[in-house]
Amino acid sequence: MEQLHCDLFDIIRPDLALVEQKLHEGVDGIYAPLSDAMVSLLDSGGKRLRPALALLASRFGPRAGDPAYVIALAAAVETLHTATLVHDDLIDGARVRRGHQTLSATWSIAPTVLAGDYLFARAASFAAETQSVRVVTAFSRALMTICDGELRQLFGAFDLDQDLDTYYLRIFSKTASLFAVSAEAGAALSGADEAAVAALQEYGRSLGMSFQIEDDLLDFVGDERELGKPVGSDLRQGIITLPIYYFLRDHSERAQWRAGLSQTNADRNAVVDALVAEVRGSPAIAACRAEAQAFARRAEAALAPLPDIEEKRRLLTLAETLLQRRQ
Amino acid sequence: MEQLHCDLFDIIRPDLALVEQKLHEGVDGIYAPLSDAMVSLLDSGGKRLRPALALLASRFGPRAGDPAYVIALAAAVETLHTATLVHDDLIDGARVRRGHQTLSATWSIAPTVLAGDYLFARAASFAAETQSVRVVTAFSRALMTICDGELRQLFGAFDLDQDLDTYYLRIFSKTASLFAVSAEAGAALSGADEAAVAALQEYGRSLGMSFQIEDDLLDFVGDERELGKPVGSDLRQGIITLPIYYFLRDHSERAQWRAGLSQTNADRNAVVDALVAEVRGSPAIAACRAEAQAFARRAEAALAPLPDIEEKRRLLTLAETLLQRRQ
Repeated sequence: MEQLHCDLFDIIRPDLALVEQKLHEGVDGIYAPLSDAMVSLLDSGGKRLRPALALLASRFGPRAGDPAYVIALAAAVETLHTATLVHDDLIDGARVRRGHQTLSATWSIAPTVLAGDYLFARAASFAAETQSVRVVTAFSRALMTICDGELRQLFGAFDLDQDLDTYYLRIFSKTASLFAVSAEAGAALSGADEAAVAALQEYGRSLGMSFQIEDDLLDFVGDERELGKPVGSDLRQGIITLPIYYFLRDHSERAQWRAGLSQTNADRNAVVDALVAEVRGSPAIAACRAEAQAFARRAEAALAPLPDIEEKRRLLTLAETLLQRRQ
Repeated sequence: MEQLHCDLFDIIRPDLALVEQKLHEGVDGIYAPLSDAMVSLLDSGGKRLRPALALLASRFGPRAGDPAYVIALAAAVETLHTATLVHDDLIDGARVRRGHQTLSATWSIAPTVLAGDYLFARAASFAAETQSVRVVTAFSRALMTICDGELRQLFGAFDLDQDLDTYYLRIFSKTASLFAVSAEAGAALSGADEAAVAALQEYGRSLGMSFQIEDDLLDFVGDERELGKPVGSDLRQGIITLPIYYFLRDHSERAQWRAGLSQTNADRNAVVDALVAEVRGSPAIAACRAEAQAFARRAEAALAPLPDIEEKRRLLTLAETLLQRRQ
């Protein structure tokens, strides 16, 4: 992934460097030990997919515009993503992310909550720097969608009876909405016409759905070292993902698993391990992979009306590349 | 306070009703039991000072404009205020606010963090509804200032050696900045000239400083029933407020108090009780009251260049009224 990543994003490398600089400015000035923790979080190998989407999408419009606006947008979406990671890790009790200690592993609840809040505020402030009401509106809607998705995920924990639409809504909310707004806002800032903006937004949305389904799949079949977390982490937190849906669809023991998962923590762990093992060896895995591929195809198809520029080729390759990632 | 409040805000009563409606719409659609908790928080007797400031300040410009913009602004500042209360109560471990159970008393950490995040997102979305880049920019800066102030307060807990400037910066950040932006943005949306916008912003800032000093004072001399929380709550959480500064300035036993407060929780409580009793009976109280009054005078003076309309008279009376509040 890292190698492909380098090749894929070479045409936006200088802009990505400016985004890095801005992301680091974003945590300057905050209480020093916390700022160190945030710098280490920023530097710990995020793929910068959302900034890259914003930057690539911003090459489809006629207006060069003030390049600072697109850099601010890219910093806004990545900072928002980082803010959600900080609060997620607190909520999940995660102690390690990307091979580094999480903020919540080092700090107590109070500074972790406030550090996340500060990053939300920074993200809103970067979004305002785009000087675009449209971008700020889209951005604040995505923020609401993400929070709403997190709440749905939390209150749906360990509920095996949620329908599949609930799953799609949840992954749209928590992942695809920010991918969509990154591409949409990048295109809008470049003065692209509405059809192109809509095409890039749909590309972002479908790419985000594909990415999250692949992510949910990796939680079952990935390598623990590459993932940087134990297999089955989602299910252990009660998050019911597509492999579970597909597995249960083909099995009649739903009631038995439901009973197992409704036990208290200690008894539940063994059930989770057993379910993960069953799902890993089942046809549900191939069905999920096919669905991630279908969303990637949909992302690629969304780009059909756009001119055949280098940025478009990169976006097409990106959709392929993300299907093959290992983490 | 409640009676005066009714008289003071009668000229903006219809607009305040629209703000209430919008605030309630703001928590619709969120997971129902949480939404009930938020409605109860919204309905539990907040004074709506920040919306009132925005609405009154919006009467100083020539442009009637779309009244929906000012309503959206008023909802944005109150929702932001509510979001900070939700996370504050979680951080402080507060179980009661305004006589009602806090969200964090009923819910675990995860939904409380996410409910606060959702309100931040709603606030940003209401701010975007003003369709004004200026308002969104000012709003997102205030949000950053507030979070930064909360972090400073947290990391300065129980530190008796902070200088007085630290205190002023802290209360500006946590309170006066949002008062200032409410008035500034209300004026800007109405198309008031820059001098009038600056005057109203300065009014808001000074009113906020006066309000917070009075609040810090009430924590020592207020009635526990009217406050809805025990006297000395701030100090118990380690928050060093103006009465403590003034008390220690006149006393030489700083080292003794510092040693007492640096003990572990159980031993510290007795020290806090003793210090609160000492401060209550000291001249520090009168000195703080004088300072709250001085900031109120400064707020009133800021309005001098503005035309003598009814809204101006209400703002002048508001500064007086807040000095006499009991909660």
